[in-house]
Amino acid sequence: MSEHTVCQDKFYRAAEFAGPQRGLVYLIGAGPGDVDMLTIGAVKALRQADVILTDELVNADVMQFVSEQAVVINVGKRHGVKSTPQESIHQKMVDLARQGKCVARLKGGDPFVFGRGGEELEFLLAAGVAVKIVSGITAGVAVPAALGIALSHRELSQSVTFVTGHSKPDGCQPNWEAIARAGGTIVIYMGITNLSYITDQLLAGGMDGATPAAAVENGTLPGQRSTMATLATIAAAVDREGLKSPALVIVGQVVMMAQSYTEIERRRRTVCGSGNGSVRAGQEVL
Amino acid sequence: MSEHTVCQDKFYRAAEFAGPQRGLVYLIGAGPGDVDMLTIGAVKALRQADVILTDELVNADVMQFVSEQAVVINVGKRHGVKSTPQESIHQKMVDLARQGKCVARLKGGDPFVFGRGGEELEFLLAAGVAVKIVSGITAGVAVPAALGIALSHRELSQSVTFVTGHSKPDGCQPNWEAIARAGGTIVIYMGITNLSYITDQLLAGGMDGATPAAAVENGTLPGQRSTMATLATIAAAVDREGLKSPALVIVGQVVMMAQSYTEIERRRRTVCGSGNGSVRAGQEVL
Repeated sequence: MSEHTVCQDKFYRAAEFAGPQRGLVYLIGAGPGDVDMLTIGAVKALRQADVILTDELVNADVMQFVSEQAVVINVGKRHGVKSTPQESIHQKMVDLARQGKCVARLKGGDPFVFGRGGEELEFLLAAGVAVKIVSGITAGVAVPAALGIALSHRELSQSVTFVTGHSKPDGCQPNWEAIARAGGTIVIYMGITNLSYITDQLLAGGMDGATPAAAVENGTLPGQRSTMATLATIAAAVDREGLKSPALVIVGQVVMMAQSYTEIERRRRTVCGSGNGSVRAGQEVL
Repeated sequence: MSEHTVCQDKFYRAAEFAGPQRGLVYLIGAGPGDVDMLTIGAVKALRQADVILTDELVNADVMQFVSEQAVVINVGKRHGVKSTPQESIHQKMVDLARQGKCVARLKGGDPFVFGRGGEELEFLLAAGVAVKIVSGITAGVAVPAALGIALSHRELSQSVTFVTGHSKPDGCQPNWEAIARAGGTIVIYMGITNLSYITDQLLAGGMDGATPAAAVENGTLPGQRSTMATLATIAAAVDREGLKSPALVIVGQVVMMAQSYTEIERRRRTVCGSGNGSVRAGQEVL
């Protein structure tokens, strides 16, 4: 048996399942974009599903794992665009599960990191519907990594705070002043629109304006674009470069790592040519 | 062609690769334990590798994806036990890459979230070795999810702070007082040993002693054990239950979600019997 066949067998064995489960909702995190960041568990769940309810931010290539008989429904919400109300998504999941369907609720990143999966879980539990949670790689972990930024490099940072830049309008706001004072790495989700306000709050909280900062649009995807600046200048840099949602902002000393990473990559490419041309931007260092 | 065959083909196609790359180190996150949390990208990288340098915390079942010709070296570090020094791991990676090997450096969770992957990346870059980063699901995301805890439920939390309870002895310590004041969810890695000290610091920072808290040993694995208490009582609860490393501590209002989740599960099992007996602890709700 060739190594290749052995590998194929092993890979497939990991994706075996004992037939679809009925009347069940999987809350699945599809990761930040790159299909390679899907987990084995997510692939297993997608293969079983009769109906897939997918968000706008999920990479369409993920649908290669869906069965041919499955129905795919886009329930995405884009900032400022008419979309499916959250309540109607809740009710649709319950109705489908009660019809005995195996439902895959597919969300970008991880369902429980600024993904509103918590609200969906609560609604499903209250309705007596069975739920399985399939964690995904959140953008806050993978997007910095794609730039060579180690969130918690222990010489530079003892803590990492993930925070939303787009809270519920009538709800609590993050305590920006305390987050600034915590002194670790700060990763801001959905922070592009309010970035001037957010950086002002962090500066008011006593954070050094010279702290390195990066903003990344479409992180881990082929269209990834990023800009490096400081806490004091990142909002202007984002405006100048025209970076748009979906985007992530990273603030902290660890952002310096991106500079050496991209500089070494640039030098290497100049000297050696682009032998790694087929590799996705930011995923390969040298 | 049956649906099953189509799925198999699709699944396999996602794991194709263009032959092993030489003189390259993959820094791979293997996730928190459950093999289903490996990503497609991690499986691809493991299949290519000539040598695997693995940490103690990586689930041995992950080795099913390694090629039969590959050499697996355990370089794990366990608290208080003699282990491979970090410098020797660095040098071994460089030596193997310079011999033209494809090296998989396999770490629990994500390499850049309290995984010392940042130090390894720096060393490899300085030595001129090519690196690819393969992000993994960090315990701080997956372990709370296994208990039904939505880290960032927007009615309860606007931020999530991941913090190490086990800093470099001569290095900076986390700013516990500011972390307490930030008011969101706090996830403490490697916090079991110093838990009394840590909870005292958070209380001194003004955090309410009645804030719900959970500690989880071996999260996502079959041996998962957990205990629920409050910030004021969690250290005593951990002592009483004898929870050991590897463990994660979660503090914040969102921890309440675990109570309804496990209560509903308990009631359902009592009424309906244990129809879900084959499912891993904490992964299935009802």
